[in-house]
Amino acid sequence: MLLSLERAAGVALGIDFGKSHVRVIVSDLAHTVLADLERPMATEQSAHEGFDAAADLTTQALRQAGVEQTDIIGAGMGVPGPIDVATGEVGSFAILPGWVGVRPEKDVSAQLGIPVKVENDANLGALAELTWGAGRGTRDFVYIKVSSGIGGGLVLNGQLYTGAAGIAGEMGHSMVDENGPVCRCGNRGCLETIASTRQIVDLLRDARDGGGSGSDLTIEEVIAHAREGDRASRRVIGDAGRAIGVVIAQVCNVLNPAKVIVGGDLSAAGDVLLDPLRDEVSRHAVPAAGGNVEIVPGVLGRRAEVLGAAALVLRDVDGFALHSSRDVQQQAG
Amino acid sequence: MLLSLERAAGVALGIDFGKSHVRVIVSDLAHTVLADLERPMATEQSAHEGFDAAADLTTQALRQAGVEQTDIIGAGMGVPGPIDVATGEVGSFAILPGWVGVRPEKDVSAQLGIPVKVENDANLGALAELTWGAGRGTRDFVYIKVSSGIGGGLVLNGQLYTGAAGIAGEMGHSMVDENGPVCRCGNRGCLETIASTRQIVDLLRDARDGGGSGSDLTIEEVIAHAREGDRASRRVIGDAGRAIGVVIAQVCNVLNPAKVIVGGDLSAAGDVLLDPLRDEVSRHAVPAAGGNVEIVPGVLGRRAEVLGAAALVLRDVDGFALHSSRDVQQQAG
Repeated sequence: MLLSLERAAGVALGIDFGKSHVRVIVSDLAHTVLADLERPMATEQSAHEGFDAAADLTTQALRQAGVEQTDIIGAGMGVPGPIDVATGEVGSFAILPGWVGVRPEKDVSAQLGIPVKVENDANLGALAELTWGAGRGTRDFVYIKVSSGIGGGLVLNGQLYTGAAGIAGEMGHSMVDENGPVCRCGNRGCLETIASTRQIVDLLRDARDGGGSGSDLTIEEVIAHAREGDRASRRVIGDAGRAIGVVIAQVCNVLNPAKVIVGGDLSAAGDVLLDPLRDEVSRHAVPAAGGNVEIVPGVLGRRAEVLGAAALVLRDVDGFALHSSRDVQQQAG
Repeated sequence: MLLSLERAAGVALGIDFGKSHVRVIVSDLAHTVLADLERPMATEQSAHEGFDAAADLTTQALRQAGVEQTDIIGAGMGVPGPIDVATGEVGSFAILPGWVGVRPEKDVSAQLGIPVKVENDANLGALAELTWGAGRGTRDFVYIKVSSGIGGGLVLNGQLYTGAAGIAGEMGHSMVDENGPVCRCGNRGCLETIASTRQIVDLLRDARDGGGSGSDLTIEEVIAHAREGDRASRRVIGDAGRAIGVVIAQVCNVLNPAKVIVGGDLSAAGDVLLDPLRDEVSRHAVPAAGGNVEIVPGVLGRRAEVLGAAALVLRDVDGFALHSSRDVQQQAG
């Protein structure tokens, strides 16, 4: 009865623009996912080709969910690059060149005729884990996303915390080696230059090829090798875990979270990654902070961003934060 | 008119037990300090001698403020050691041996017949700066207290944030040197082992004495020497600033605060400390976080803890956090 009342009140849309896909979900206000559709995209896409694909998928998804366009209370969106807070434009660090300079919040809102909110991928992951995943019912947690880049999202007092200018959670740019590699942020020895999946794959490919090129090793293959016992793969993933652990220890000292959730592509490595990470947290954090923090993998896999995008809308609905009741863990992946 | 209504509604008590003093203030609910009294204490004091002194001072302060015991809505309290959250007991790290094992919240509440809340000194400093000092009107800031130890307090979304187990803000135990000195927390190379006033004084005393002992150099003297141009004093304070800056840079990456407020004894060094600190923040933080953060000294000096103790009660009064209207900067010191 309550559920049908809530469903009648509207639905939230989640849209995720990735490097090679667009994904759209429809969720009712009780957090039940009513539709979930994905379409592959070329990396040469223009932003507007992406918007058109999202509009198509939205029409299909609404039909599948059995709701009308007018039922949408809003859309949350993940985009393939950082947004300038002042102008709303996608910045030059975008992973898809066709998106630079576009204003996706404004453009998609105009195209679909609904309110749209944009957030970065790590913050979306944190919101998704809060609503549907490993963070449900946890008031204070840190989410770290380890993929080709490293970012983070903070849930404090049951709410996403984004800082004074919306850029909190940049743990990927904590310095772990004063004289380390130059990072895209302009500093040196950032965690991201040491422990990203890109770095892991590069190290192992170089070793395999003897410095040659042309090999197309993926992080999924590295993780599979590690699970099969390959020493080099385990070592390189473990070293990444240790570096991440040193940074997470400092974050635990500062924020004293109840939980740390590790998401992104590398989290599929499980304890090969997490055991060394936990060791370093317990070695470097003050005992009261490091001894009691639970360090777990995210459970939403590739759905984290699109679910988080829908959660961006759902969290504005009263009483949302700590009362999530639906479990979509079994649907994750 | 509003003020007199608010004053009629009650007063808050702040009590600070330091290494060599007890201090009591009375504040009305409009944040006007009505009385402020201090009494020197011996470091050999028992906790109960401290409580008796606080009770005496409270009676005097109420008389001076022209209010009754029954007007007190509660007392906030700073104590000379960490409190175990589970038992309420002062732990063995207490700076006054006579306090170990005592339960100050319970005991003072019983003795004075009023509700009492305890908080650590750095969190009290943050609350004081929020209410009366350099943090007024700032929604998100980090307070770092640099004295014989180094601690921190976080104000996020206009409220003190203390983490899952009440120990957030332990920036003093961020590692800055993997192979550095052993810290009282059990780790090595913590910021506190490099940049505390104790370390600064020790380094300069050793140099002056040629390793001899018996000298009684104080941090106040070191700061005075630095202001007079003494190279060694400026260098050692500057090095401390740089180490603090490296840690603050990581904190800026994670929390993206609008402001960092540096309090504690070392903050009196001003730009001799803050300029190198700012340089390292701008060098190590991501530009969007490090470029826009304001790094300023605290303005409340030795009154920070006792004012913060009163603020601990005041913040429970409706609409407190961002509506502070009184300025006691000119009374600070």
